[in-house]
Amino acid sequence: MAFLNENYLKLQAGYLFPEIARRVREFLEGNPDAAKRLIRCGIGDVTEPLPRAAIEAMKAAAEELGHRETFRGYGPEQGYEFLRNKIAQFDYRDRGIEIADDEIFLSDGSKCDCGHILDILAEQNKIAITDPVYPVYVDTNVMAGHTGPVRADGSYEGILYLPCTIENNFVPEPPREHADVIYLCFPNNPTGAVATRAQLAGWVEYAHDHDAILLFDAAYEAYIDDRPHLNPLSGGENGIGRGRLGNQGGGRPYGKRQVRAGNEIPHSIFEIDGARECAIEFRSFSKTGGFTGVRCGFTGLPKSVLARTENGKKLALHPLWHRRWSTKSNGVSYLVQRGAEALYSAEGREQVRALVDHYMGNARILSEGARAAGFAVHGGTNAPYIWVETRPGQTSWQTVDWMLGELNVVITPGSGFGSRGEGFFRISAFNSRANAEEVARRLRESKSS
Amino acid sequence: MAFLNENYLKLQAGYLFPEIARRVREFLEGNPDAAKRLIRCGIGDVTEPLPRAAIEAMKAAAEELGHRETFRGYGPEQGYEFLRNKIAQFDYRDRGIEIADDEIFLSDGSKCDCGHILDILAEQNKIAITDPVYPVYVDTNVMAGHTGPVRADGSYEGILYLPCTIENNFVPEPPREHADVIYLCFPNNPTGAVATRAQLAGWVEYAHDHDAILLFDAAYEAYIDDRPHLNPLSGGENGIGRGRLGNQGGGRPYGKRQVRAGNEIPHSIFEIDGARECAIEFRSFSKTGGFTGVRCGFTGLPKSVLARTENGKKLALHPLWHRRWSTKSNGVSYLVQRGAEALYSAEGREQVRALVDHYMGNARILSEGARAAGFAVHGGTNAPYIWVETRPGQTSWQTVDWMLGELNVVITPGSGFGSRGEGFFRISAFNSRANAEEVARRLRESKSS
Repeated sequence: MAFLNENYLKLQAGYLFPEIARRVREFLEGNPDAAKRLIRCGIGDVTEPLPRAAIEAMKAAAEELGHRETFRGYGPEQGYEFLRNKIAQFDYRDRGIEIADDEIFLSDGSKCDCGHILDILAEQNKIAITDPVYPVYVDTNVMAGHTGPVRADGSYEGILYLPCTIENNFVPEPPREHADVIYLCFPNNPTGAVATRAQLAGWVEYAHDHDAILLFDAAYEAYIDDRPHLNPLSGGENGIGRGRLGNQGGGRPYGKRQVRAGNEIPHSIFEIDGARECAIEFRSFSKTGGFTGVRCGFTGLPKSVLARTENGKKLALHPLWHRRWSTKSNGVSYLVQRGAEALYSAEGREQVRALVDHYMGNARILSEGARAAGFAVHGGTNAPYIWVETRPGQTSWQTVDWMLGELNVVITPGSGFGSRGEGFFRISAFNSRANAEEVARRLRESKSS
Repeated sequence: MAFLNENYLKLQAGYLFPEIARRVREFLEGNPDAAKRLIRCGIGDVTEPLPRAAIEAMKAAAEELGHRETFRGYGPEQGYEFLRNKIAQFDYRDRGIEIADDEIFLSDGSKCDCGHILDILAEQNKIAITDPVYPVYVDTNVMAGHTGPVRADGSYEGILYLPCTIENNFVPEPPREHADVIYLCFPNNPTGAVATRAQLAGWVEYAHDHDAILLFDAAYEAYIDDRPHLNPLSGGENGIGRGRLGNQGGGRPYGKRQVRAGNEIPHSIFEIDGARECAIEFRSFSKTGGFTGVRCGFTGLPKSVLARTENGKKLALHPLWHRRWSTKSNGVSYLVQRGAEALYSAEGREQVRALVDHYMGNARILSEGARAAGFAVHGGTNAPYIWVETRPGQTSWQTVDWMLGELNVVITPGSGFGSRGEGFFRISAFNSRANAEEVARRLRESKSS
């Protein structure tokens, strides 16, 4: 009889968001009048309309397919050159970061890429994952058989967990133990934490020392606030440019950013010297262009990233990833690729900037509201997520129920992201301004009530 | 150091279509004047404009995303209900085939599904694959570690090959050996062969006897010609309805098809009694709606399909496949799903029918041309592929070079699909009518020259 992949049976039944959905449904059944008061700050899904540039580009692309002269069938499995080039140019080379067009691989989202990357890695790898963490990193490793069974606290045997705590500002130091593959995500989901240049350099050093690979999820890089007056880490306007970016004559100035030694926040792991030998970067148009429903992301995989065979032979991963796409995919929808390309037009970049500013405005409002309610607040300055400490003695699920029942606001419990998430909850800033203000108002009033 | 997936190193370097592209490029470099005479009948990619219904639906969907009230972010990972329901209703239930909406899983193409399905199956499975075959079935199994190394003839150790020959009309009998997972594709790529109800019933019986799973690729089902006057297998107009379809009072009549015992050609494996316990079906909008660049397909996975754990426990695969999508994907682009839905409107179905008729008209013209040139021709009556015997003493790559050099026509060598494909070549009917007629003309003239 055909055998099934038993690793799936190790997965915990209740995936986080379905469980939240269940509690919301149950609450509304008992309190139907609360339905119109309900505001969702749970799942990290965008709410604002798509940039006009992307819409028009996708409509034009659809029309192109309606005419024999401009019809296109199968595209390159790794993505069209027109988009790979725009990404490499605008997101990397214009910022002084070395990358070739064919080191960019298009996909239908970075969630997919995070899972698919395991296709080209072997089972022997020791996996390190931060805790709390975006559950997809863990679950895809469980499904691929890289872990043992689940423990009582929801963690899996065989994974090296890296605690993200108040003490380390939610950015873990490289561990003493050996790991082969390390997942890092900055700006972080769920904590909203960011890693400085010095911290990322420490991770690249670790990767070189251990011949390890960093899987760097930069899906939220656009939320890094480079404006000195707002960024508490950038420390004023008189910082002196230093390091890779500041020193590069050829590169264009990196926005308004004040480049300071070690302290500033890289948008890409490839800003760190040596990362081209040890890192793979995942990015997404979901939270920049609002593409959560349109579906597009990409992987940056330099040709210089090597991994080993059992016999110790070192080989580049790039041809394997290229082959994976050739064999298992026919690429991203042409319409979608044209939509993503439009985000790099002058108009498109302005519209993306406005979207990001909108959500970060929400993040400020929500952070202030939570603080006014007496909560201790983390994140929310370089990320669209606010990571809030629960009230003393309250678990994160208890806080979910309280927020739902008392404020009619849906949030995500920290424990849903791992055992070290207990004692926290996540507020998503993806919402309308009116909703963000209303949630802040209810939070402030909850203090006095 | 991080380990790579060494199974990728077993893959043969020259993937079929890149090698053809290389030869074409080389030929054109030596014969630049031939460029405008060149006609491509190689890769199975559609050429005609997208149905207008799909274009308008995708443009409308893009516009919807531009307004807050109609904006949509993340959709259900398994696909929107509006499309799953249309598929289940039109492609299955209206044809008397039992399937539930939630047994349909949307994807960005059946190539992807054919690879991803291995995620939920274990390594111990004995895999059976027809020869010749669509290379993706083989390569994805190699990548997943289900095979040994490659042999001199291009086959892989560990796979049970099922020869498709002139003698068995390119439809293999179930083997004497045991297999756990069997790939079947009818109408077949590359041979254009179709399997009768009796033949598929034999395979379902085998699957039940061996507790095996059939992976049934029905990407070309729309090309089955149910019209009695054209279909050499349907045998006249006075056939009496029989079997599952004919007996179902609730089902609508299955087009103009004359249902006959054993002899007719099912569109779906689920037309066969017992298939709901042993089969998974892959379908695509690529060759119906011309979606090769738009990207959409689906899997039909009944809840009654079971597989076993190592301990012999039998479990449904449906929850695993559902979980796979939840964890590793965020579903297909909303625009694309609306485009696919529009193919089921009255207008859309008419436009799809016209596209299929167009390509099948080409298939007739090309078949006649090849016959007139003295070739022995198979396929091309219920599939958009014509499977042609090479001239005595000629290999299939030699024929590729001859067709390219003498007729300036690109074809696909049979040996590219497996060792049993040697001695054949494939002509694709995906082309304009003018090109099909021109290729037929050149073929006819090649006879006299």
